[in-house]
Formats: sequence, structure tokens, C-alpha cells
Amino acid sequence: MADDAFTDEERAAVYRCIDSRRDVRREFLPDEVPDAVVDRLLAAGHAAPSVGFLQPWNFIVVQDVATKAALHAAFTRANAEAAAMFDGKRAGLYRSLKLEGLCEAPLLLCVTCERDRAGPVVLGRTHQSEMDLFSTVCAVQNIWLAARAENLGLGWVSILSLSDLRTILGIPEHVLPIALLCIGYVSHFAATPDLERAGWRRRLALADLVFSERFGARRRETP
Amino acid sequence: MADDAFTDEERAAVYRCIDSRRDVRREFLPDEVPDAVVDRLLAAGHAAPSVGFLQPWNFIVVQDVATKAALHAAFTRANAEAAAMFDGKRAGLYRSLKLEGLCEAPLLLCVTCERDRAGPVVLGRTHQSEMDLFSTVCAVQNIWLAARAENLGLGWVSILSLSDLRTILGIPEHVLPIALLCIGYVSHFAATPDLERAGWRRRLALADLVFSERFGARRRETP
Repeated sequence: MADDAFTDEERAAVYRCIDSRRDVRREFLPDEVPDAVVDRLLAAGHAAPSVGFLQPWNFIVVQDVATKAALHAAFTRANAEAAAMFDGKRAGLYRSLKLEGLCEAPLLLCVTCERDRAGPVVLGRTHQSEMDLFSTVCAVQNIWLAARAENLGLGWVSILSLSDLRTILGIPEHVLPIALLCIGYVSHFAATPDLERAGWRRRLALADLVFSERFGARRRETP
Repeated sequence: MADDAFTDEERAAVYRCIDSRRDVRREFLPDEVPDAVVDRLLAAGHAAPSVGFLQPWNFIVVQDVATKAALHAAFTRANAEAAAMFDGKRAGLYRSLKLEGLCEAPLLLCVTCERDRAGPVVLGRTHQSEMDLFSTVCAVQNIWLAARAENLGLGWVSILSLSDLRTILGIPEHVLPIALLCIGYVSHFAATPDLERAGWRRRLALADLVFSERFGARRRETP
């Protein structure tokens, strides 16, 4: 076994992190997140893979109450538009959900993507133009898992217009906002996703989602 | 401390996984990846966060030599086009890089996104239309980290035309291919990214990428 091989205990910790990570938008504790912990989350983001080693991301740390309130107001406007897109019973259920924790979370983080950081031609982006956005999302997921390992809840708030987000955080035209995250300590992590418990949508069976060799060809016969 | 809190040892394992993960495209060992390990990687992907709990992904497991060869041929075509986009010395360096391991890796995995799996209106996608693609990328990053914890190298091969990928793997029009991954055991993981060692691009300083409250406002004074 190589020197850098993961032990069974280490592997189990990684899987526990992946399995117990949740999209957290409520029940944040008021405790401040220490700077050293914020630094570790950011380092985890910066350790993400990136197309052509572009490292296209920036991280905006938001702790100011007025900025949080402005983001919350932008969410409220967008969420009213969103709620109107659902019908009947579904609209009622939608309105009952808690979909952000922008004011309660002690820490917000906006992750952005500067697409032309290394000029217009990027190794690995020539045939899949969104690879730089995807690299930035890998950074978000690294931060999400690091947050879980720090016992910090994290929620990705996507119900906001990007132009509001640009205005409030001063994001220039050539930079694309990718994710707005609310982060804070929580007393515990729920065993299942909020939307599953609320009856919004069921957990799909993994076996139905896996194919062998070609799309649509089941990998194994279900007994 | 809550029952589900991470210990220092568990947290260290998660950070070691994040830090030592590499984009691996060569030096794969021929050893087969056992089905039980493949199942764990897929479960890690399926545990990813998804917008509106959509779980928009499918996973196509590819082990057939002829399919790998067809994918490799598609890469070769696309890579010739890509190489022609770089100038002079840069083009020479580009041509010297090993950017895929499609034939050598014992296991390939294609991760796709079915955008309308729950109909046209998706909770959380109403104002950011690419959130379902981003959810799928979160699944890829989960798989990437799980692979590292399994001592498996993984590389994301993006230099292929999506239409070739669709044809070879029989992916229907309403499903979007997101990632083609080459996976296999490796004798060790490199300390730094291949593209950094090859001199393609430098590691950026994290402190230059972090802002406070607004884009462009440095978080801390650099001494």
C-alpha cells in the first residue's frame, strides 16, 4: 500500500461527511465562525479541480448586517415570483418551505467565476464551454463538505436574481456570480434532506439511475 | 458537542482528501475496480445536493474496450482542434501534455443531467437556470473525493464534442452529458497538479482571491 493511501478510518470519515452533509437554511446558532475556520473553508474551495488550472474563482465573505438584509430583500422579491410559478396545492407547500437563512446565518459567502482570467482560450474549455463554471461549482462542493466536517451547516440560496446579487455585492460585468451560501454552526444535522421530509419530492432509487455501457441499459437486473 | 459532530481525526481525513485529490490522466494500474467500490462511488454521487431535490443525474458505467476506443478517437479529433487554438510555444507545450486516460483507465463513468425530470418548473431553478447542471457537478465532485478516499485516481476529460459523446453512449436529446471521468487505481498521487508541474499555469495566492463584503475589497491587508 502506498504511503499516501487512505486508511479505513479516513475513508469512513470521508463517506460520513458526504452522507451527512445537508442543505441547511435554518436553526443556525448565533455563534460567530472564527477566522481560522473561514480560512480553512476558503482553502478547501481553492483546492478544487479547475479546467486548465484556471482557478477562476473569487470568494466574497459577507458578515455585515445591512448587506445580509439587502440580500434577504432580493430573495423575498424573487421568491414571490417563484411561488407564483407553482399551482394549487404545490404552491401552498412551496410557500411553507424555509428556503434561505440569509439573515440568521452569521456568515455568507458568494463564490464567483472570472471566465477570462487566463484569456479567451482555456485548456479543456475548447469543446465544453461551461467547464470553468463547473470548476467553480467543484469549489462550492469542497467548501460544503469542509463545512460539514467543521460542524457548520451550509445552504446554497439560488432564489435571487443574479443582477440583484451583482448590484449588492459590486460584482463587475466580466465576473459571473455562481453561488450564494449561508453558513453557521447548527446543533445537529437532519438525517434526511428538508425537501424530502416536507414531501416535496422523494429520494430516487440509485439502481434506477445507473446504466452499463449505454444510456438506458440497466447495469444489473433488479431481482 | 452534538452526537453527530466530527472529531478532529475525521475532520483531518476530510481535509486530506480535499487537499490530495488530483486530476489523474495517466499511470493507471490495470487492476479492476471491484463492483462494491463502484457502488460506493455511485452512492457518493447520489448523495450530492440537488436543486429542488431534483436528483437530475444518471451514471453510465463504461468498461467495454471498444467503447473506450471510440471515446478516445473522439478525444483525439477534438484535441487536434484544441491544439490549433494555441500559439507558438504554448501550442508545443499543449501538445506535450497528457490530457486523458480513456483507454488505460479500467473504468470510465459518464455523468448526465436530465433537466426536466420533474417538469419544467423546479424549486430553486426559477432564477438561476443552470442550477440543475451545477447539482450534477456537485455529484461529480463527491465522486472525485470518494475516489481519492478509495485510492483511485480520477480525471475529468472535457476535450470531446458533446455530440460525439451522445452518439457513442446513446444519450438522448433531452439529457445533457456533463462529465466523462476516467478512473483507476494509481501507485501514488502527485503532490501538485500536473498542469502546475508542467509550467502551464501557476497556483494563485488564495489571499488575492478573497474579498470582504464587496467584490474587490481585500479581506485583510497583506503585510
